[in-house]
Amino acid sequence: VTAVDVPSGRPAALATPEPGDPRLARLSLNQWTVRQWDLREAVEGCARAGVPAIGLWREPVAAAGLREAVARVADAGLRVSSLCRGGFLTAGAAALDENRRAIEEAGALGAATLVLVVGGLPPGSRDLAGARAAVAEALARLAPEAGAAGVRLALEPLHPMYCADRAVLSTLAQALDLAERFPAEQVGVVVDTFHVWWDPEVFAQIERAGERIASFQLADFMTPLPADVLLGRALPGDGHIDFPPLVAAVEAAGYRGDIEVEVFNADVWAADGDEVVATMLRRYVESVT
Amino acid sequence: VTAVDVPSGRPAALATPEPGDPRLARLSLNQWTVRQWDLREAVEGCARAGVPAIGLWREPVAAAGLREAVARVADAGLRVSSLCRGGFLTAGAAALDENRRAIEEAGALGAATLVLVVGGLPPGSRDLAGARAAVAEALARLAPEAGAAGVRLALEPLHPMYCADRAVLSTLAQALDLAERFPAEQVGVVVDTFHVWWDPEVFAQIERAGERIASFQLADFMTPLPADVLLGRALPGDGHIDFPPLVAAVEAAGYRGDIEVEVFNADVWAADGDEVVATMLRRYVESVT
Repeated sequence: VTAVDVPSGRPAALATPEPGDPRLARLSLNQWTVRQWDLREAVEGCARAGVPAIGLWREPVAAAGLREAVARVADAGLRVSSLCRGGFLTAGAAALDENRRAIEEAGALGAATLVLVVGGLPPGSRDLAGARAAVAEALARLAPEAGAAGVRLALEPLHPMYCADRAVLSTLAQALDLAERFPAEQVGVVVDTFHVWWDPEVFAQIERAGERIASFQLADFMTPLPADVLLGRALPGDGHIDFPPLVAAVEAAGYRGDIEVEVFNADVWAADGDEVVATMLRRYVESVT
Repeated sequence: VTAVDVPSGRPAALATPEPGDPRLARLSLNQWTVRQWDLREAVEGCARAGVPAIGLWREPVAAAGLREAVARVADAGLRVSSLCRGGFLTAGAAALDENRRAIEEAGALGAATLVLVVGGLPPGSRDLAGARAAVAEALARLAPEAGAAGVRLALEPLHPMYCADRAVLSTLAQALDLAERFPAEQVGVVVDTFHVWWDPEVFAQIERAGERIASFQLADFMTPLPADVLLGRALPGDGHIDFPPLVAAVEAAGYRGDIEVEVFNADVWAADGDEVVATMLRRYVESVT
């Protein structure tokens, strides 16, 4: 039992799945789950544990160098389930150029999708409708460019507690209303359990989303939330979310892509990376398969 | 300028409104905004400042004694805009008796409404649908009893960050779906700006709510949230919410009742009560009138 393996009310799986276990065929490790690792360590950690896909973040990719990142991922035979993240489209014109760089990087990495966290209210502003309109305008500029680069943008509705400072898109319904203005191959949505589990419409909106589901991310919701609410994400089984019905709904909607585990959690980051990955494998199998 | 009078980007009103100012005619001080005061002090503070209504909480009412609370409020000529709170209906059968006591108290105090915070997931449970069904069942028992006692129950959708531990009702739409099963004079809803401001449907649902609006509460949403996220509420003007459009929407929906300022905030609780009330009057006039 490791520091991060404290199941709450759910029996622990008997054993950590071995590399090659067919139950792991769609598992992706989001790189920020093991922020204690740099890109090389994360790629090697996936290979050791038999995780076939990885969700990358732009910062560690930049730290390694894009060309080296591309080579390492290819050498390890990993799929890149997503690149996190573009967005912050409420910040004005500079955001467009930053997103164009992110689209380029996603293309180079062969990422299935570029996740967009759309941004919160501009500093000092209380104009939520205006911020949402700015997101739509910026997306109209970026979507065709992403399409031309073979990159799919994925709008991520964030939990409403981040509406002011991180994302003025708070529900799947709202994200789909916006995504549906564009071709499905250009703009999809992210279903992240942590952000949407509370939503009384979550099952109806997952069904509606269908082929718009571009990314599926797993994290549990802890209470009490930690002092930094960004770090309230936990490994599946450590919080309040009932995963199997959500997994089944995403499956029923037709999603067949990778399933990322994306946890931001100070205790997880303080633990040994290989132990985190081993715990993740057990929790994933319990929750998903 | 007091410790709690730090307007963020909004000009301060020139002067604190005096008792008798017609702009204060619908203002109610929710007692928990000045938790540093006991019931006697809160009633006297309202009288000094010319606040014509008060939102009471059961705990300080019990501390004063119900009979004394009734007498003090009557002697001061205050309206009781609400009693906070009943609810926690997911906790099982014991909750019913507790709510019956709350209904009795609301009736004795002449409270316009009894606010219900419906409760989160039972300990160890991940059955969100089951918890919501339990709320509906308990409400079906309590609503006619409240009606018979002349007390209106008000379902309060809480911000989704409290879904797990405080309220499995998270949106106005969801609260209205439930309230509409009962006569409007038995069950209404609370519109609390802190809880609903982020909702892309908030204006549509306020319009839909119409005569179901049983209570209207003002608090601003701060970032970063404090370590105890229950205390993320701020005086209007100190956070991210644009109040006038929400106030106008509630008005357009036909609500003519009192407007409570309900702030849970460690800095506000540490300040002098009269200064808090004076700041509240200025912010209220800026935000509402």
